Amino acid sequence: MNDQHRIDRIEVTPFAIPLTTTVKFATGSLSAAEHLLVTVHTESGVTGTAEAIPRPMIYGETTVSIAFAIENLIAPALTGMSIFDTAQFEHRLRHLAGNVAAQSSVEIAIFDAIGNALGVSSHSLLGGFAPDVRCTAILGSGSPEVVIGEADELKETLGITSLKVKVGLDLAADIELVTRVREHAPDALIYVDANHGFSAAEAVRFVRATEGMLDWIEEPCAADEVLGRASVVAASTVPILGDESCITTREVVNEVLGARSTMIGLKLQRTGITQSQRIREFCTALGVPILVASQGDSGIGTRVSASFAAAQGSTATQPAELAYFLHLENDLLAHPPLIENGRLAVGDEPGFGITIDADKLTHYRTDGK
Amino acid sequence: MNDQHRIDRIEVTPFAIPLTTTVKFATGSLSAAEHLLVTVHTESGVTGTAEAIPRPMIYGETTVSIAFAIENLIAPALTGMSIFDTAQFEHRLRHLAGNVAAQSSVEIAIFDAIGNALGVSSHSLLGGFAPDVRCTAILGSGSPEVVIGEADELKETLGITSLKVKVGLDLAADIELVTRVREHAPDALIYVDANHGFSAAEAVRFVRATEGMLDWIEEPCAADEVLGRASVVAASTVPILGDESCITTREVVNEVLGARSTMIGLKLQRTGITQSQRIREFCTALGVPILVASQGDSGIGTRVSASFAAAQGSTATQPAELAYFLHLENDLLAHPPLIENGRLAVGDEPGFGITIDADKLTHYRTDGK
Repeated sequence: MNDQHRIDRIEVTPFAIPLTTTVKFATGSLSAAEHLLVTVHTESGVTGTAEAIPRPMIYGETTVSIAFAIENLIAPALTGMSIFDTAQFEHRLRHLAGNVAAQSSVEIAIFDAIGNALGVSSHSLLGGFAPDVRCTAILGSGSPEVVIGEADELKETLGITSLKVKVGLDLAADIELVTRVREHAPDALIYVDANHGFSAAEAVRFVRATEGMLDWIEEPCAADEVLGRASVVAASTVPILGDESCITTREVVNEVLGARSTMIGLKLQRTGITQSQRIREFCTALGVPILVASQGDSGIGTRVSASFAAAQGSTATQPAELAYFLHLENDLLAHPPLIENGRLAVGDEPGFGITIDADKLTHYRTDGK
Repeated sequence: MNDQHRIDRIEVTPFAIPLTTTVKFATGSLSAAEHLLVTVHTESGVTGTAEAIPRPMIYGETTVSIAFAIENLIAPALTGMSIFDTAQFEHRLRHLAGNVAAQSSVEIAIFDAIGNALGVSSHSLLGGFAPDVRCTAILGSGSPEVVIGEADELKETLGITSLKVKVGLDLAADIELVTRVREHAPDALIYVDANHGFSAAEAVRFVRATEGMLDWIEEPCAADEVLGRASVVAASTVPILGDESCITTREVVNEVLGARSTMIGLKLQRTGITQSQRIREFCTALGVPILVASQGDSGIGTRVSASFAAAQGSTATQPAELAYFLHLENDLLAHPPLIENGRLAVGDEPGFGITIDADKLTHYRTDGK
């Protein structure tokens, strides 16, 4: 049956969905989700869908570079490949550097197509460990009152009790913020993300001052500060989560074996399926905790991330960052994800459960078609 | 559709197929393949099949212990589980120690059932990298003339040019044997397996004396000789393959990170599918070569091992030990595997391609039914 499902062409459609509030990062801010819809078509007529998310400040990719790479570098390499021969994906693209979002989106769309061809959920095909996964919300920046207010609303409306607090700009204010949030929510799961904002010396002071308050600490200081980062790990009583310092498998291996990250954040939008599985199994082999993190996914990527996270015990038993799509004013999905009691159910629709609403696509696509 | 395919019961049938020649090991000899046929039945009527291979001298299991463990410990834990929820397998059996062949056979049968339920080959579902895999034959012991004669016959009749030579009993004779075999077959891939037969000091002498002759060296000395083993790795210009010292994921991690094994042999019959995938991805993450080795599989296990090996690039590009079934006078399969031009094709039958011949089963089963 493989012969029926050879890749015929890959379609790329840019779209932009406004955010209901401007989202601020250490490296900039976003007022819309300007992503690309990626659809793999097979000769049998089966399709698979994913989104590609440009992050020029992190991976160097833009909407233009992603579309060009998929159409001119990736599609020619994959045309004629059976969607089932997933292990061929890396091999056929072994000479293409970077382009992580472009490559990942196509690989995810291929795995979606497999589920669609078989009428089975990708979640089941990837392991089917748990029917749902606990969601973490990433809180916006602001005064302790504003942050606590947002946390209260998330708990009240969606049952979310796993919170990620952004820090790394002002050591004293950050310690105060964490102290206040923890006092207000003694039972919540709380971690912080400094996005490399502290020096190693500041980070050591931060982990000492917040001892007993946090569940883990993400990217306290730059991984380039190699010995300093190790000193933060040594000073901390909770895991130090590696995210932007641990993108590729090789980075994960080096940071974990060097004891500079003791927990790993995985993003499907940058490492796709095969490499994400490799990183997950590497961490599992070493007993290093691992969670599925957010690349600012719309509902499309959220379904993929949730399915992948829930599929294996190592990620299903950690909270996953699945609430970003709530910032979007709408979604391309006919049925956007629902967070209930703080959890997101993966369902058992075929593939990753991605059904695009044609009217929404017409409204939000930016290619004038 | 998962609900249709819940595990209903697991059937265990012992069988014994005589070997055409007695196979000698360092720890004993075998004159028959006394294995167990394991069949997972789902509520939908779909089945999955595997074999379990007792190796009391290696894993402590017997035909009796395997049958009892499957029927009384494993089946009750898995009954009602969807075959698709493969990540639940380890979780549900997390309190069961050892019993590696019992657990692996059931997990393999579950993956076979998934392929049968979907009408797709397990090889495709596991990655589908290559349509076939190069076969290694494990040569019997004897004088250089006898060993060379067997190698010649394997090349002539089956095109096999990847050879594993058993050493570890007599250092001088082994060096002479390797020298003669390499002289006779300068283009073959040749490795040796000492099965821990040398001391570390002897092993260092062996690797020096055979420098330039071998592609890698398996288990030169006991892994318990921890520093000695590391000294063998340091002395060798080719990889030191870990097999019986690297069974569990934890052993692989420790031996690889301790640089006491620089290549890994994987046996599906002891680590099943999920743990084998974890070990394979761990090694791939570190760039450590890995091959699929033999547990003395009949045609049934051979199909499983070949499908798994060919499914991902890391194992598909190494030879796999798939020729043991040639020692059996017959097989339970309706269509036993064929080695042609030194390679075994995985085909695209559903599951692992295991179709049992009812007449053969009646003839070789040992439970009097």
